[in-house]
Amino acid sequence: MADAKSKFMEVYSILKTQIFEDPAFEFDSTSRQWVDSVMDYNIPKGKLVRGLSVLGCYKTLREGQELTEDEVFLACVLGWCIEWFQGCALIIDDIVDRSHMRRGQPCWHTLPGVGMIAVNDALVLRNHIGRMLKLYFRKKPYYVDLVELFNEVEFQSISGQMIDLITTNDKDLAKYSLTLYNRITEYKSAYYSLYLPVACALILAGENIEDHSDVKGILVEITAYFQIQNDYLDCYGDPKVTGKVGTDIEDRKCSWLVVKALELANEEQKKLLQENYGKQDPACVAKVKELYDLLDLQSVYSKYEKETYEKLSKWAESHSSKVVKGLWMRYAEGYVEAERRVDVKS
Amino acid sequence: MADAKSKFMEVYSILKTQIFEDPAFEFDSTSRQWVDSVMDYNIPKGKLVRGLSVLGCYKTLREGQELTEDEVFLACVLGWCIEWFQGCALIIDDIVDRSHMRRGQPCWHTLPGVGMIAVNDALVLRNHIGRMLKLYFRKKPYYVDLVELFNEVEFQSISGQMIDLITTNDKDLAKYSLTLYNRITEYKSAYYSLYLPVACALILAGENIEDHSDVKGILVEITAYFQIQNDYLDCYGDPKVTGKVGTDIEDRKCSWLVVKALELANEEQKKLLQENYGKQDPACVAKVKELYDLLDLQSVYSKYEKETYEKLSKWAESHSSKVVKGLWMRYAEGYVEAERRVDVKS
Repeated sequence: MADAKSKFMEVYSILKTQIFEDPAFEFDSTSRQWVDSVMDYNIPKGKLVRGLSVLGCYKTLREGQELTEDEVFLACVLGWCIEWFQGCALIIDDIVDRSHMRRGQPCWHTLPGVGMIAVNDALVLRNHIGRMLKLYFRKKPYYVDLVELFNEVEFQSISGQMIDLITTNDKDLAKYSLTLYNRITEYKSAYYSLYLPVACALILAGENIEDHSDVKGILVEITAYFQIQNDYLDCYGDPKVTGKVGTDIEDRKCSWLVVKALELANEEQKKLLQENYGKQDPACVAKVKELYDLLDLQSVYSKYEKETYEKLSKWAESHSSKVVKGLWMRYAEGYVEAERRVDVKS
Repeated sequence: MADAKSKFMEVYSILKTQIFEDPAFEFDSTSRQWVDSVMDYNIPKGKLVRGLSVLGCYKTLREGQELTEDEVFLACVLGWCIEWFQGCALIIDDIVDRSHMRRGQPCWHTLPGVGMIAVNDALVLRNHIGRMLKLYFRKKPYYVDLVELFNEVEFQSISGQMIDLITTNDKDLAKYSLTLYNRITEYKSAYYSLYLPVACALILAGENIEDHSDVKGILVEITAYFQIQNDYLDCYGDPKVTGKVGTDIEDRKCSWLVVKALELANEEQKKLLQENYGKQDPACVAKVKELYDLLDLQSVYSKYEKETYEKLSKWAESHSSKVVKGLWMRYAEGYVEAERRVDVKS
């Protein structure tokens, strides 16, 4: 794992160098420095779990065979394309949500001299993906499949982000439901976080992803499990550990917590939510949190988390795709377990 | 021309319908309404000169031949892809520049209930391009060329926008020069405004665009001519005619006017510019405008405009590519002349 990560970081340096040598744009020292900062500040700072999982999935698919240098390199390139995608998405999310902290550092758009230029910087990162795919995959028979995969997944993520945002815009909480919640999670997160690494690995292994559409179902469920954990931590997590200060209540997010609260609340409590949810005023936020405690959402979450973890483990174990099983094991037993131990009071 | 425009608008309706039937995202009535507004508000409101010129260029290339329904339709689709691209770029420009008016209506991001969601809406529009190209061109032998063309041109435009923004960010006007100005114009505008329609028409006509790289030079020059006009109108145009209130001085833009002013100014006047350019304070803006008048920039512009118009006319007339000649005629003798008559005091 440590080896995979250091190999992955090596490829990051190579990709950066290539970007500056792109014949389509003549960099000068000012623009080179700027793009260098945009990349270093926003891309390799996370857990890189999405990016690393392309190589992980690919190894699973090639089980028993030694990978060539070239195969490892190309899997890392695709992994980085996903991390670039994530970097772009996070910059934009933070602007739209007016967030201040991300991954333990101030959000890119809050830095002096950046501001709204961050919107353009996010697009710079998105555009690098097309450049990298062209540079390394132009001659491969699956080039078009890769380009279309990234395009389709971006379209879905942007559409998911849209329904999230326009839902949040509505002053009426009546529309918030588990169905809507799941729809947002599916489009906004599932395809790019879990499906995209799997699909990249499949394409790289010469598979037709149309033949593997059955992996989508379980990946959407796994994403919902992560997203619900994320929503829980937004309210109950320790910013020192999560690296950000949650603002879901202030931002009127269709969070799992508010959906559950609406399910469990009596009429009076619903009225309290309607009046206080989505307000910047700390007193309103405190009232919402009090209600969450009164409804014992920490226990509700804890029960959900335990049951779902077991359900997903069984499902993944018995899934026809070995990639799904491997992915679940790496995510659930590494990354997720670590967060569960630290943050979830159960 | 009226015929071409009504045909073009017909195709717009078809494209909208197709977008809502995309199998990659399941629209509900709320998201359908939202995307419908994003499109109608931001796409078909301009002069559509870029979009219409794909069909124009294509006709020139097919001179003497009757076009089939299918050829006309596909040329219109590509034209709309460019207009979609433009819609996306304008939304983002307006956010980054904190503009209020565009094409005679309030900027999208200033509408109640939109705000920063506009960032995501811009990406929605950008993503539609990939969906439309896939839907109508997936089976064509030049599909990859089209996809890569749009990717490359977007990369160049975003890079041009970046150098524009980071230049503007610098508090020192010393870096503003005609060289920098031309570099910004080339990357930010030339490729997507003029080269993209020509390249689309060439690809549609079965040409290899690599064989036509000589068109880039003159198209970059023509773009500079338009951009300089645009910069002039930002300060001296009538908002009732241009549809927007210029803020180049407030935004510290590397405008042709300030570049010329810096060229012509004595040390004291340079100091005045350094102290007053890029400030929101109307008194500072007024001082800059006074200096522009003192330096007689209206006459400087008028001279430049006349000379360049003649130079470009001759160059286009004698250019080896008949598309370039046709494009110049349509742009210069229609659109540009109209604006010259109305706005330029000469």
